[in-house]
Amino acid sequence: MSLLVVGSVAFDAIETPFGKTDKIVGGAASYISLAASNFTNKTNLVAVVGEDFPDAFVQHLQNKGVNTDGLQIKKGEKSFFWSGKYHVDMNSRDTLVTELNVLANFDPIIPQSYQDCEYLMLGNLTPKVQQTVIERLNKRPKLIVMDTMNFWMEVALDDLKQTIKMVDVLTINDEEARQLSGEYSLVKAAAAIQAMGPKFLIIKKGENGALLFHGKEVFYAPALPLEEVFDPTGAGDTFAGGFIGYLAKTGDISFENMKNAIIYGSAMASFCVEKFGTERLVNLTEEEMNTRINVFRQLVKFNLTSV
Amino acid sequence: MSLLVVGSVAFDAIETPFGKTDKIVGGAASYISLAASNFTNKTNLVAVVGEDFPDAFVQHLQNKGVNTDGLQIKKGEKSFFWSGKYHVDMNSRDTLVTELNVLANFDPIIPQSYQDCEYLMLGNLTPKVQQTVIERLNKRPKLIVMDTMNFWMEVALDDLKQTIKMVDVLTINDEEARQLSGEYSLVKAAAAIQAMGPKFLIIKKGENGALLFHGKEVFYAPALPLEEVFDPTGAGDTFAGGFIGYLAKTGDISFENMKNAIIYGSAMASFCVEKFGTERLVNLTEEEMNTRINVFRQLVKFNLTSV
Repeated sequence: MSLLVVGSVAFDAIETPFGKTDKIVGGAASYISLAASNFTNKTNLVAVVGEDFPDAFVQHLQNKGVNTDGLQIKKGEKSFFWSGKYHVDMNSRDTLVTELNVLANFDPIIPQSYQDCEYLMLGNLTPKVQQTVIERLNKRPKLIVMDTMNFWMEVALDDLKQTIKMVDVLTINDEEARQLSGEYSLVKAAAAIQAMGPKFLIIKKGENGALLFHGKEVFYAPALPLEEVFDPTGAGDTFAGGFIGYLAKTGDISFENMKNAIIYGSAMASFCVEKFGTERLVNLTEEEMNTRINVFRQLVKFNLTSV
Repeated sequence: MSLLVVGSVAFDAIETPFGKTDKIVGGAASYISLAASNFTNKTNLVAVVGEDFPDAFVQHLQNKGVNTDGLQIKKGEKSFFWSGKYHVDMNSRDTLVTELNVLANFDPIIPQSYQDCEYLMLGNLTPKVQQTVIERLNKRPKLIVMDTMNFWMEVALDDLKQTIKMVDVLTINDEEARQLSGEYSLVKAAAAIQAMGPKFLIIKKGENGALLFHGKEVFYAPALPLEEVFDPTGAGDTFAGGFIGYLAKTGDISFENMKNAIIYGSAMASFCVEKFGTERLVNLTEEEMNTRINVFRQLVKFNLTSV
């Protein structure tokens, strides 16, 4: 079923303990679309770039079956640019440069051909822009998943809360869940956030996996312990892309199937961090993905069938 | 099969964001014995206390089937005392007071009746004392599990490495694994630590669960997301007690069965943190434990049976 992805398509320059890149392609919607394209060939992208953005990447998205009719290319303007440096522990980073450029006045125009989308993935963006996307759809999608970050909790909390109210699934990390809810316990935070609107909450914990909350139910997905995390940039977006891509492919938005979708999202994210930027996702094969899913199954399997 | 537990039996005074205790019973071996006693009635304790230690707790251990013949009571001396205050996040704490008292010259005397033990759990202690226990056993146990902490890595690294070489399973937390190995990646840290001797390594990650490494194999056990962590003191020891208690009960030390043992250990630890000190463990019923094991099963279960 068709999926609409909205978010940044941009440049990143990244420094990790393992190396450093010049400007490379990044942005939430780049990672989400690439990850989702492994599951569905009905991915529709809405984003904005400047004329400095490489045609080759757009071509690559198209080759993966991503519809880029909704990708606005602004003549004479520059793409969003972020530069950051990761600390040794890879769980924290310093932002060195943020140049909004085309993202400063992003007006998310939805092509008519996208109007029938059943799944909507709102990548991290100004909450107002995320809300505008929902409002511009003639029919509410079957499932709306939204990612956000602490920055919006600090500068646009009211807008954020309004947008959160409109979505089905919110994905944030553990610190953000604590910040948004004011609760330290993640169980309490999850209850408080569900009371804000979303019936499902995914709390991403990086190398410590992810939690899916729905009412009183909870699912704990592990992260794969890796020899080396080369570059964590985009891991959360890749996770989200795998998650919603799998749901769009299977057409089943039950709590049980969301568990499977989280395992696929986690598997996709485990590839993402193996190389800089989108490099590893671009050349990922189906066989590699299936092999990794089996590794995830083994990772948490134990034999206490009944007590 | 019989289990020998060696470690501290002591007093703690604890402050958490939820409250504060006077001196209450604590110590690694107290938690380990209590947890293990839910699985086997052949637990033998070696420890030392002063004459200030309450008979009632010793009586309680005996009622739970713990043999206390190896508990030395030093007349005119005081029990080990630790006092600490937890930060809001409960993952870090400040030590306010450490009084070694009887532990300063602890000579671990093994009663003759303990000599046939097949399982040995070395709770956190001076590595030299842990080593002495192994040397004083006429026959090497079938399985030796050892817990330790960062403090010994700082003040007695050579002794620690000598002792680690003699054990089968080492349990430490993630920061300690990084410190001991000099590797940031837990996968690399696990390989480095296995090269030091233990064929199995358990890395405890608190609210983020635990990892079991054995050669190239890895198992990820979740921690139960809890509404409230009231007091984390003793959670690691309780985990270890559940782990080795289950192994001693089943008599199976395969990697597969260790996965089950870790789930039992995690379940026991999830009870421990619900109240101050040993309070919750003292009154735990078998039914409560079985119910919680089922919660753990549900927590990680997903339906991707084949890909």
